[in-house]
Amino acid sequence: MKHDPALSGKLIDGKGVARRLTDRVKADVESLREEHGVVPGLAVVLVGNDPASEVYVKNKAIQTHRAGMRSFMHMLPETAEQDELLDLIALLNANPRIHGILVQLPLPAHLDPIVVTNAIAPHKDVDGLGEVNAGRLSLGIPGLVPCTPLGCLMLLQETLPTLRGLNAVVIGASNLVGKPMAQLLLREGCTVSVGHIDTKDPRALAREGDILVVATGKTGLVRGDWIKPGATVIDVGITRIALPDGKTRLAGDVVFDEALPLAGHITPVPGGVGPMTIACLLHNTLQAARIYLNGQSS
Amino acid sequence: MKHDPALSGKLIDGKGVARRLTDRVKADVESLREEHGVVPGLAVVLVGNDPASEVYVKNKAIQTHRAGMRSFMHMLPETAEQDELLDLIALLNANPRIHGILVQLPLPAHLDPIVVTNAIAPHKDVDGLGEVNAGRLSLGIPGLVPCTPLGCLMLLQETLPTLRGLNAVVIGASNLVGKPMAQLLLREGCTVSVGHIDTKDPRALAREGDILVVATGKTGLVRGDWIKPGATVIDVGITRIALPDGKTRLAGDVVFDEALPLAGHITPVPGGVGPMTIACLLHNTLQAARIYLNGQSS
Repeated sequence: MKHDPALSGKLIDGKGVARRLTDRVKADVESLREEHGVVPGLAVVLVGNDPASEVYVKNKAIQTHRAGMRSFMHMLPETAEQDELLDLIALLNANPRIHGILVQLPLPAHLDPIVVTNAIAPHKDVDGLGEVNAGRLSLGIPGLVPCTPLGCLMLLQETLPTLRGLNAVVIGASNLVGKPMAQLLLREGCTVSVGHIDTKDPRALAREGDILVVATGKTGLVRGDWIKPGATVIDVGITRIALPDGKTRLAGDVVFDEALPLAGHITPVPGGVGPMTIACLLHNTLQAARIYLNGQSS
Repeated sequence: MKHDPALSGKLIDGKGVARRLTDRVKADVESLREEHGVVPGLAVVLVGNDPASEVYVKNKAIQTHRAGMRSFMHMLPETAEQDELLDLIALLNANPRIHGILVQLPLPAHLDPIVVTNAIAPHKDVDGLGEVNAGRLSLGIPGLVPCTPLGCLMLLQETLPTLRGLNAVVIGASNLVGKPMAQLLLREGCTVSVGHIDTKDPRALAREGDILVVATGKTGLVRGDWIKPGATVIDVGITRIALPDGKTRLAGDVVFDEALPLAGHITPVPGGVGPMTIACLLHNTLQAARIYLNGQSS
């Protein structure tokens, strides 16, 4: 990625923000241990042998451990039955050393991700993907918020003095990112619009956004003329693409070189949203341990 | 309300749609009784002596009874403690003759509406206001949907051949109407924007709406120049206002006489959204009885 160094003040440093958040979590984990004798614990469950998922869960385990937390990994074979997985989740729900539970998605096709996700106790649902936490987010009740949109929100809060009253446009309406992102932005007082595959003129919609969050998984969907001049652009997309010379590189949903001159601030890919997701997982695990502690003392 | 009779084809007949829905519910209740021996039952709980709430719950009880369902009313004094209310809800949750439970809002200030609403078993939460049903709506999982936005959606479906791809603008972001309305419209494939008290230019936002749903409780907020020509306008607001001659009338959030010439279709106030809310409550109670029946047979 080459660009005018004068423009680099526009880059949102996801790596840096994530590192500072991780450091804060680590310090808080230390205090929690010293003051209350509680060490936050995260259990990550992987079903099957998807290589990308294996890399993700290993990274999560390492980062958790580095932050001073207990880290548990449970790997089930591709053929695991749903009942076996639900039994495991029930054990993890009952285990007082485990404060957060994460089942890596996607699951093999014979398992129902909705049933499995909802089997995680809401106060241990650190991915925030179960119906109770989704409802709490929608209703504005405190709960565990999905990591990627939470990370996007933190980047916006680092970048902008206030979000209240800004026009925010979210492109992509997934349960994982787009929908919770829209609800978070609404909670912060933004006027929020959500576009998706059925949106007739997504470019016109995007151009209304003082904030533009793109989470479609379609590499290069968002061109320069989708960007409102001065907008803050958060690119959630991350896809490995092949280059003509046989090498590969990571690319986002936004054509970065076209968007950079127009955007007020923009996340790079990689180094933007990506590092925030795992930092927010650590943050949520710490939150879950605090919820546990409050439940103990009340 | 006076207007050119040639324009009356524009009026969305909420009363008529609600009557047909109520008739369908009544017929289905009859079948359910004959085929499965189950009579749907709705329990309405009122705390305190708010006169408007008393009228609402009485109306709900009468309509429930007329639809062939069992109707139960529980009236607690203004001074009732939260534990007393929670104990009552626990009894109603456990009662197999009761399929739907509704606690009339607003509650007296010393009671926590979030705790009370979430105490209702999700499968009996016919107002759809608990965190589990809110989460299901957000995630696109089947559940019980709040009555007023469900009624608005039905009116839109009666009026428009399809909602997919239309620009829908919701003014008002309450948990009761605005937020669930936005989620329903998103589920139907609309591009959805939500405006509220912090929206800088709500008129410009509203004018983008092929569909405009207004639920702010601010009488006469939406003027003619907020309406995109040809738009379908759903006015959820209903406030009794005093007239110069000392009489009163009901008014919506939309200035009806200004909007009528521009709108493609518009709900009157009264006779638009109002009758749908109670019809949808009956519909939800029937749904809850079916959920109960499926739980019995599985």
